[in-house]
Amino acid sequence: MKSYRKELWFNVPARRAFINITPQVQACLAESGIREGLILVNAMHITASVFINDDESGLHHDYEIWLEKLAPHEPVSGYRHNVGEDNADAHMKRQVMGREVVVAVTDGKLDFGTWEQIFYGEFDGRRKKRVLVKIIGE
Amino acid sequence: MKSYRKELWFNVPARRAFINITPQVQACLAESGIREGLILVNAMHITASVFINDDESGLHHDYEIWLEKLAPHEPVSGYRHNVGEDNADAHMKRQVMGREVVVAVTDGKLDFGTWEQIFYGEFDGRRKKRVLVKIIGE
Amino acid sequence: MKSYRKELWFNVPARRAFINITPQVQACLAESGIREGLILVNAMHITASVFINDDESGLHHDYEIWLEKLAPHEPVSGYRHNVGEDNADAHMKRQVMGREVVVAVTDGKLDFGTWEQIFYGEFDGRRKKRVLVKIIGE
Repeated sequence: MKSYRKELWFNVPARRAFINITPQVQACLAESGIREGLILVNAMHITASVFINDDESGLHHDYEIWLEKLAPHEPVSGYRHNVGEDNADAHMKRQVMGREVVVAVTDGKLDFGTWEQIFYGEFDGRRKKRVLVKIIGE
Repeated sequence: MKSYRKELWFNVPARRAFINITPQVQACLAESGIREGLILVNAMHITASVFINDDESGLHHDYEIWLEKLAPHEPVSGYRHNVGEDNADAHMKRQVMGREVVVAVTDGKLDFGTWEQIFYGEFDGRRKKRVLVKIIGE
Repeated sequence: MKSYRKELWFNVPARRAFINITPQVQACLAESGIREGLILVNAMHITASVFINDDESGLHHDYEIWLEKLAPHEPVSGYRHNVGEDNADAHMKRQVMGREVVVAVTDGKLDFGTWEQIFYGEFDGRRKKRVLVKIIGE
């Protein structure tokens, strides 16, 4: 069994953003030389997500509005977590969108459907944060 | 390390449905000959889910009502994604229910609690769509 | 390839609670002797979650309030699942928080960011329930 590990770093200038990281994950897979196995991609921070969905800007706008409705940032004082912090909503948004994805590796490629793309979902940006890519297989 | 891959195809006649796919996944596992490892089951489409919960029709009815409340289909024009499409809500529902499950394989079986069953959750049906089963182990 | 399996048992005296199980999972990893691979930690019950977030009591209070807003326990009769049961809301809360986490194992350790901790999320307690830890690797 072979294994591979890499950290991807991000510094999102806004509080929230969705970034397509599929090319970086594909580069990791190529570098690993693994042809059959599983790839784990996870946020290493608890106010960010890694998820798979569509690379369509209208949808990303809809996600932003929807997540803000499900777990509003304001009023900041409405969350007990927000003592010296203002990111409680980010911890909720991350649970809806998920921490991680596990993707099959087949014949040296991400085994994806037509529209599947991997995103880093930032909900409390404006600082350096990272994503872990771990691959196991042969 | 052994690996196994299969696609399961579905053509749900309604927009939304929950289908118990545990027997198909068990058949894949038997066919693979793998006795110890991990099995990944994921939707290959971004408006569908694979999740684990109870095979109880009352609960499935409750999920339908609940998901429609969290991410309503109507008004279709309320989503920016819906330009020539009407499935933005399906992209949200899929995030709540999840893209994938990872299940332990122990002694050649799905290592499940008493009530765990695997479901395909369709949120934008009436066309052919597929699920990926990938197993790695020995 | 090596594999390891253990069940962790819980008997939460209240209906709902969040329990930090990171030390138990770390003990499993040490016992397994696996240095590189993947670890799956999943609820074996469909009204409970395993998730990764912050060990901060204010946040856990916020999660409790937020989940109760997204999927209220009352009125119990509002759910078709609740015939001789009262836990339909627990099946919803578990979907928001997730069934499982997959964590990278690197150099014999859980490959975690600074604040990542693993929690058992109980939404229908007052009885014995269990979590599965499965590790594969070398």
